[in-house]
Amino acid sequence: MIEMSVGQYDLIYNAFSFAFATLAAATLFFWLGRAQVAPQYKTAMTITGLVTFIAAYHYLRIFESWDASYDVIDGTITATGVAFNDAYRYVDWLLTVPLLLVELILVMGLSRSETISRATRLGLLAALMVALGYPGEVADANAGRWIWGIASMIPFLWIIYELFVGLSKAIENQPENARGLVNLARWVTVLSWSFYPVVFFAGAIGLDGATAQTVVQVGYTIADIIAKAAFGVLIYMIAVRKSEAAAPTATAAAVPAE
Amino acid sequence: MIEMSVGQYDLIYNAFSFAFATLAAATLFFWLGRAQVAPQYKTAMTITGLVTFIAAYHYLRIFESWDASYDVIDGTITATGVAFNDAYRYVDWLLTVPLLLVELILVMGLSRSETISRATRLGLLAALMVALGYPGEVADANAGRWIWGIASMIPFLWIIYELFVGLSKAIENQPENARGLVNLARWVTVLSWSFYPVVFFAGAIGLDGATAQTVVQVGYTIADIIAKAAFGVLIYMIAVRKSEAAAPTATAAAVPAE
Repeated sequence: MIEMSVGQYDLIYNAFSFAFATLAAATLFFWLGRAQVAPQYKTAMTITGLVTFIAAYHYLRIFESWDASYDVIDGTITATGVAFNDAYRYVDWLLTVPLLLVELILVMGLSRSETISRATRLGLLAALMVALGYPGEVADANAGRWIWGIASMIPFLWIIYELFVGLSKAIENQPENARGLVNLARWVTVLSWSFYPVVFFAGAIGLDGATAQTVVQVGYTIADIIAKAAFGVLIYMIAVRKSEAAAPTATAAAVPAE
Repeated sequence: MIEMSVGQYDLIYNAFSFAFATLAAATLFFWLGRAQVAPQYKTAMTITGLVTFIAAYHYLRIFESWDASYDVIDGTITATGVAFNDAYRYVDWLLTVPLLLVELILVMGLSRSETISRATRLGLLAALMVALGYPGEVADANAGRWIWGIASMIPFLWIIYELFVGLSKAIENQPENARGLVNLARWVTVLSWSFYPVVFFAGAIGLDGATAQTVVQVGYTIADIIAKAAFGVLIYMIAVRKSEAAAPTATAAAVPAE
């Protein structure tokens, strides 16, 4: 195990607990807010809450695994020998990253056939991106990290192309009061996701040890909260505004509730 | 206990956690989506969520049992002597496999008398299939595994006969926008269920040891996710499309909510 200071250990410990609380609260916000959007956006809100639900579960597991990895007694930290299970992150991303793209497609309100084809393509690309990253994460040699990392960037670049070229017409067709937010959601996706390869390749250029571990764990946690909870709030705001646009005489709150 | 490598142990460990997260998320998706289908398909969605709920519970237990079976300290794995409880799978299947057939019958929207008779017959056959398999699973000699395994195949073949002959007329009568999906759901049932006897008889021809254990545990997990969560998504899609077909002037989203 890496030798950490008590301060570094506590910072990561508290970051994991913070992430669990934020993601669990976000889940309840999205599912309660589901009653306030028009029927055609309810599935988008369901999926938005599922993403934060799955992530909250994994942060609980990550927290427990971190807790089991070190003992802090009388201000002295010792590694217990139980490995910290970083694989929970990849298991989480394998489920949540495809669903994040699905919620963006669903809230855009495209035709059924276009929704299915775009959500399927983007979902598979996202799963491929995560699956290709994992062998690099656990590779013994830096060469493995570079090869798998670069392989993983191919679906990532394809996703960016789909978001900025494939969806550009669909974004132009959004109602005016939601267009800016949909565009913002697209940018939040690309920018928050860009943090992950930065951390990944930081390992490949040999950044290691307690400080690197702290930056990686706290960094992934912040990125997960932005990419899932903050992104979900954008999806909710888009759904509310489009519900208003669809029923111009009613306020969002007055659309028939479930 | 079987001697496993840390990599094999971790793969199974992460697969169990992944299955719990997927099945729990699927449960919430089905129960939230229940508000979006016509009243006559709500029970199908309730049951679909029950299946994944029961399976999520059992994967939590399976995960905990696996966790208790081995210790991994400083990268060295040792069996604790606590047996891994594989019986959770049979307890799960005894409940969920009959319910999977019930959800398929319910979403087909047959007459009440036909629904009751077909759901009862298929449910009993499925329970019989699971109950006959269990003595073979725990048999000391391979002869026991063969005898009970073959006995268990009889209700399985009868179920296939019911799905492909008994239900063929009912499938022809499905609305056009749902017929292909109902047919697909039938095929997903038969193909995903076929994986279980393959694993079962792999034990009978003497495949054993750590690699076999890894294939069996990860294989059952993938089969459970496909047969329960992915199958449930098909049931949901059928229910949504049939809700539309039943109310042709309204969109699916606009069907009367509960």
